[in-house]
Amino acid sequence: MNFKIKKNVLLDELVKVAKIIDYKTLNPVLLGTLIEVGVDDVSLITSDGSISIKSVISKKDSGLDITEAGSILIKGRYLIEILRRSDDKFVEIILVENNIIKVSGEKAEFQLNILNRDDYPLLGFREKGNEFEIKGSVLKKAMMQTMISIDEFNKKISLTGLNFNFKKNELFISGTDSYRLSQKKIIFEKEVSNLDINIPIKTVSEFIKIVTDKDIVRFIQSEGYVTFIFGNTIFQSTILEGQFPDINAAFPRDFNSIVTLGNREFSKVISRADIPNEENTSAVVNFKLVGDTIWVKSNIHQIGNFEEKFQEFDLKGLDEQNISFNSKFFMDAVKTFDTKVLELKIIDNKKPIVITSPEEPELVQLVLPMFIN
Amino acid sequence: MNFKIKKNVLLDELVKVAKIIDYKTLNPVLLGTLIEVGVDDVSLITSDGSISIKSVISKKDSGLDITEAGSILIKGRYLIEILRRSDDKFVEIILVENNIIKVSGEKAEFQLNILNRDDYPLLGFREKGNEFEIKGSVLKKAMMQTMISIDEFNKKISLTGLNFNFKKNELFISGTDSYRLSQKKIIFEKEVSNLDINIPIKTVSEFIKIVTDKDIVRFIQSEGYVTFIFGNTIFQSTILEGQFPDINAAFPRDFNSIVTLGNREFSKVISRADIPNEENTSAVVNFKLVGDTIWVKSNIHQIGNFEEKFQEFDLKGLDEQNISFNSKFFMDAVKTFDTKVLELKIIDNKKPIVITSPEEPELVQLVLPMFIN
Repeated sequence: MNFKIKKNVLLDELVKVAKIIDYKTLNPVLLGTLIEVGVDDVSLITSDGSISIKSVISKKDSGLDITEAGSILIKGRYLIEILRRSDDKFVEIILVENNIIKVSGEKAEFQLNILNRDDYPLLGFREKGNEFEIKGSVLKKAMMQTMISIDEFNKKISLTGLNFNFKKNELFISGTDSYRLSQKKIIFEKEVSNLDINIPIKTVSEFIKIVTDKDIVRFIQSEGYVTFIFGNTIFQSTILEGQFPDINAAFPRDFNSIVTLGNREFSKVISRADIPNEENTSAVVNFKLVGDTIWVKSNIHQIGNFEEKFQEFDLKGLDEQNISFNSKFFMDAVKTFDTKVLELKIIDNKKPIVITSPEEPELVQLVLPMFIN
Repeated sequence: MNFKIKKNVLLDELVKVAKIIDYKTLNPVLLGTLIEVGVDDVSLITSDGSISIKSVISKKDSGLDITEAGSILIKGRYLIEILRRSDDKFVEIILVENNIIKVSGEKAEFQLNILNRDDYPLLGFREKGNEFEIKGSVLKKAMMQTMISIDEFNKKISLTGLNFNFKKNELFISGTDSYRLSQKKIIFEKEVSNLDINIPIKTVSEFIKIVTDKDIVRFIQSEGYVTFIFGNTIFQSTILEGQFPDINAAFPRDFNSIVTLGNREFSKVISRADIPNEENTSAVVNFKLVGDTIWVKSNIHQIGNFEEKFQEFDLKGLDEQNISFNSKFFMDAVKTFDTKVLELKIIDNKKPIVITSPEEPELVQLVLPMFIN
């Protein structure tokens, strides 16, 4: 194995595939990065056991010059550290002995021990199945808006991930921990065959780190797997077993009071009601609507009490409500809106509140109230 | 107790004095911030047991308006969180009951539990003694350049801090862990009475966080204490017992080889020789001077080997040396110079190397070699 390449190209791709490596893995071979040098390109492959990623560097813009094909398994973090400290524009990597590679630039030369390539698991990347195409920016934003409601330690496995449900030309992305629920709808121009899968929260978090806003993503469902193909990258994960609950039944349709208010102004009031305490438990925040005033109150364990008057809002319906929430759940939901205006839709103090915005009608956040006071 | 003040002034001062609070303290009363409201000013006081700080807010620029004097002990972190989230320009603080204060702005109001003021230790701030004045920028820089050689867990107590030694009109600041030594000389216009004290490394680190470059610092030595007075702040610490070793005897005067080279260029080579490994141990870096070339080599445990040729240097004296160092010690020493040029002064492979720069003749770094290969 012998190739030469622009240092920064190799460094960027090594850093990208290293993101999914789990340094606490019990299987040390998964600390490795597989470098496969073909006739025309170099592939970098890593895996954490359930998520795998493959990045293909072609000759275009990479200055890649392959003298001899081959395949090695290295500890990527050391090669990353070496390349980061290098001033060279190009780097040459040569397998000099069975277990040593030589990494050389203009003046500096490293002899780096490598791992046994034969120990690495065979990873099949599935590039065919039930698929649709979506903008990276749109998918990433929808994931970030809905993953807030997921508890990764939920006992019900299907709830430890995001549900992707494609019906006709609408994709619904939903997350819930049974106390709150987030749903985003994305409308497509044409219909795609139906699809209903649960993607682990870890897969979602790792994917968000790697995809860029300008990518166009091919989303492919196959038996037991989801594959995202974008740019020069194939990102694949196992999916969660089990049936996601029918959450559409959870959304109330009729409300007694609809409060319309400024997102920024109201968020600031809630943040004041939620002073972090020593045990890092969330406060209970209470909204009391009386006529033209909302009284926001909280009692923060062992610290004290908070009270603030809020009057800049419009109201449709009943002008009397008294409802309490976990302040963190409420704030998480509010923060997913980058809009100017929020709508709080209330039935009574025992039914979930629904948070929406007229500026982003495809996003719905729902939070159950707490029965305190 | 009842006063009103500009929110940002109170917030900045609370944040400053909170820096020395040790949240792992076994004495919970030291988690508190003492607020003493006098007739004309408000003092904020904190202590970690050995370091104490007092910040005095006068009426100037603070909008301070005192209705009733008094003294309370609060958990400063909560008041900080409250003020950070506030949009108000002014805040009013009133003692409403024995153990509750009311913190109010225009619309929001907090009722905050407070601690028992009588539990707080009596701190005497010593403002008289053997003293000199120095620029904050000069003192801070000298501390940062010399503290690198201190091992805070050294078994010899006097070595766990910086030695300040004032003779005639010269102040010598020195730190050593017996494997390396840092010394900075500061020359004053006039003589000050002799002074020789050891300031704990923790005091130095905390002081650096609080002093600003534009402060003029009064440095005061009194029995068992050192006090720094700057701006509106009194910062006081106990000093270390025991005699600091006579380090002037450690500096060699005659060298066989003096190498002059570019700081930035050479630092980059060393950083390449020092790839961090899994156990986070430092590499041993070897310099082999042969004629017009320095070969920089290192062997990084379980990772591999490094080698680089370095030729851009001037040499006085012997053109043959072969000397090895702990790469971290060497790098720490080199990094204290923000100069263009470094001088490496070598006797042989068993004697310490001395690192200096003609651009900053008052700073000397000394590192012992390792006897490997």
